[in-house]
Amino acid sequence: MDMKSKFSNKVAHLEASAIREIFKLLAKPGIISFAGGAPDPNLFPTKELSEIAAEVLLNDGKTALQYGITEGYLPLRNWVKDRLKNQGIGSEDDETIIVSGGQQGIDLAAKSLLNPGDGVVCEEPSFIGGLNAYRSNNAELYGVPVESDGINTEKLEELLKTHENIKILYTIATFQNPSGITMSLEKRKKILELASKYDFIIFEDNPYGDLRFTGEEIPTMKSMDKEGRVVYLGSFSKILAPGLRLGFTCANKELMERMIICKQVEDVHTNVLSQMVAYNFVTKYSIDEHIAKLRECYGRKCKLMIEYIDKFFPSCVSHTNPEGGLFLFCTMPEGYDAKEVMAKALESGVAFVPGSTTMIDDKAPSNTFRLNYSTASEEDIKCGIEALGKVLHEIMD
Amino acid sequence: MDMKSKFSNKVAHLEASAIREIFKLLAKPGIISFAGGAPDPNLFPTKELSEIAAEVLLNDGKTALQYGITEGYLPLRNWVKDRLKNQGIGSEDDETIIVSGGQQGIDLAAKSLLNPGDGVVCEEPSFIGGLNAYRSNNAELYGVPVESDGINTEKLEELLKTHENIKILYTIATFQNPSGITMSLEKRKKILELASKYDFIIFEDNPYGDLRFTGEEIPTMKSMDKEGRVVYLGSFSKILAPGLRLGFTCANKELMERMIICKQVEDVHTNVLSQMVAYNFVTKYSIDEHIAKLRECYGRKCKLMIEYIDKFFPSCVSHTNPEGGLFLFCTMPEGYDAKEVMAKALESGVAFVPGSTTMIDDKAPSNTFRLNYSTASEEDIKCGIEALGKVLHEIMD
Repeated sequence: MDMKSKFSNKVAHLEASAIREIFKLLAKPGIISFAGGAPDPNLFPTKELSEIAAEVLLNDGKTALQYGITEGYLPLRNWVKDRLKNQGIGSEDDETIIVSGGQQGIDLAAKSLLNPGDGVVCEEPSFIGGLNAYRSNNAELYGVPVESDGINTEKLEELLKTHENIKILYTIATFQNPSGITMSLEKRKKILELASKYDFIIFEDNPYGDLRFTGEEIPTMKSMDKEGRVVYLGSFSKILAPGLRLGFTCANKELMERMIICKQVEDVHTNVLSQMVAYNFVTKYSIDEHIAKLRECYGRKCKLMIEYIDKFFPSCVSHTNPEGGLFLFCTMPEGYDAKEVMAKALESGVAFVPGSTTMIDDKAPSNTFRLNYSTASEEDIKCGIEALGKVLHEIMD
Repeated sequence: MDMKSKFSNKVAHLEASAIREIFKLLAKPGIISFAGGAPDPNLFPTKELSEIAAEVLLNDGKTALQYGITEGYLPLRNWVKDRLKNQGIGSEDDETIIVSGGQQGIDLAAKSLLNPGDGVVCEEPSFIGGLNAYRSNNAELYGVPVESDGINTEKLEELLKTHENIKILYTIATFQNPSGITMSLEKRKKILELASKYDFIIFEDNPYGDLRFTGEEIPTMKSMDKEGRVVYLGSFSKILAPGLRLGFTCANKELMERMIICKQVEDVHTNVLSQMVAYNFVTKYSIDEHIAKLRECYGRKCKLMIEYIDKFFPSCVSHTNPEGGLFLFCTMPEGYDAKEVMAKALESGVAFVPGSTTMIDDKAPSNTFRLNYSTASEEDIKCGIEALGKVLHEIMD
């Protein structure tokens, strides 16, 4: 039978993430990869989690292995609520639920709000998982460039004036993926004002916010949200372990009611064993002490990577200076295409993510690329950046 | 702000599962519940899984806690492929992936295929999680009654003749939820013929197929699928543990490519720890020996429930005679509404699922109800059915 003719118009146009295609190339042994967005596996508390998982299953296996509640395992949900409350997040009109990773929060909120043709403003560059969630709802995507202090709010307002279909603004305000840039307090306030004026909803995706290694904390947009316009998307992936698939979402109760129904349809509920393991970890140990270790490590690795970039890259290649998170973003002079550089880099045993994959028009060439510093060892960061520098010099000199 | 006005037309009309609402009432202590669809928690291999989880995290924690592959943990995926192959399931043109519970397979396939207004034929009664997956894609649902040997194929063909929009037929052919009925081989073949003639796709949802406690095996529709029309949906929830949220789907490669992209958008990948725990369980122990225990237990409980129904229910209340699975279905004389019976039953400390919630028009009264025999203890089955019999006699005598 002709299966292709049956595809829905939600999915017929979607393409597998280019990043995933890159991951396939990484199977080649000896490749140093700055392409992923994975935590340093050496910092996973495997011994602690091993003991906890054994105890949970032995003492409370009938709960851990049975069907659970769609909204999440109540003790973990309450712990998250309290933690968010201490960060000024969550009003009387909000609800917080546990989701199967931060991505599911984006997907549920997008599905609950977007009709075909509705507009979503995205930072450009942005996170491909977010972009694809909006694409899969046949939304219109509009890109607004990210500057050194976050999205260009003037261009944003121009767009809002002329596009009444805009329903959502998607932002990773803190340690943005892929740029590593953090939005200023002033711009955060401006966006909240614009949201009120032009009546749109803000998706504040904040998986990296806890991972600050330098500079000063800036309040989340959700903590300044007086009108219930911000859908706050959090994750355990970067502060504990992505393999557990645990995230959380805090948003307006009425919206959350829709999202919970969508979650029932998507996966009934989040993995109970994971939720219980995470809950026992955060109550038995200090998540903040654990996060402090991550901050220290990623700060050190980021500094090392920048040191080597400054030493080995052509001076015409600029880079961002993240204050936290997992990524930094490089810009080559105009005319160079990062996809072509990528092909050469792979031959030299180094991988990264070409910027084009993080743009709304992901077919156009881009002179930018993303480097991840959290996963590789310090030795690999040194060797890999030196090797990448050679490739760039060969191309540019 | 007015959040409700922003809801997408995919979700604005959806209602929280009535079964979930019933579950809230079950919090009342002392209630004997035949309402759920949960395995007997006493049969979870908690000790074995506790040891396995501890080992996996200690010895291979860097894999178990890190990001994984969207298609699933390869050793588990290969194990599932081999098992399905031994059951005659999966051709060269098919692909098999691990999903986050059987429900996710339904959801991904529905999303990949359904445009608003596309038709889905459902057995009536059917599984509410399936119905809601189609509703959330704004599909048109058409019900065809289930008879003692499965869906009425004559009525099905009448429907197909007059409705060109029908794209999918959704069936739980074996030990159907909620009826407990198994479709005959003849009807399975007839439906495959009709699928070819009228060019539709079959979703064969088979979470209970392994749980036969009497009668003879009937081949799955997927094993007789020559045209790649069957999307086969399997689950570990009923044969191992639902809290792990593990299912699998085998379908045409091209369709699967779309489903994998949708899965990336929904939750990136399935919980890695769960997949590794399940893989180690099925390779270290015999899943078939474990399933044999489940069959024996559920067969005993089903027999006991029927014995007590025959003893304590008014003779005008009929019931199905399942050969496996978790449910049986009762029909009262016309004019009685199971929702009203349910209210009285709850006062007497017994809960079940009114049939109306399993119908396409879930607002209309129904004289049917579903009883689950897998979760309650044998003592509770005895007490609960006797108490429910009293309620029914009070109403009907």
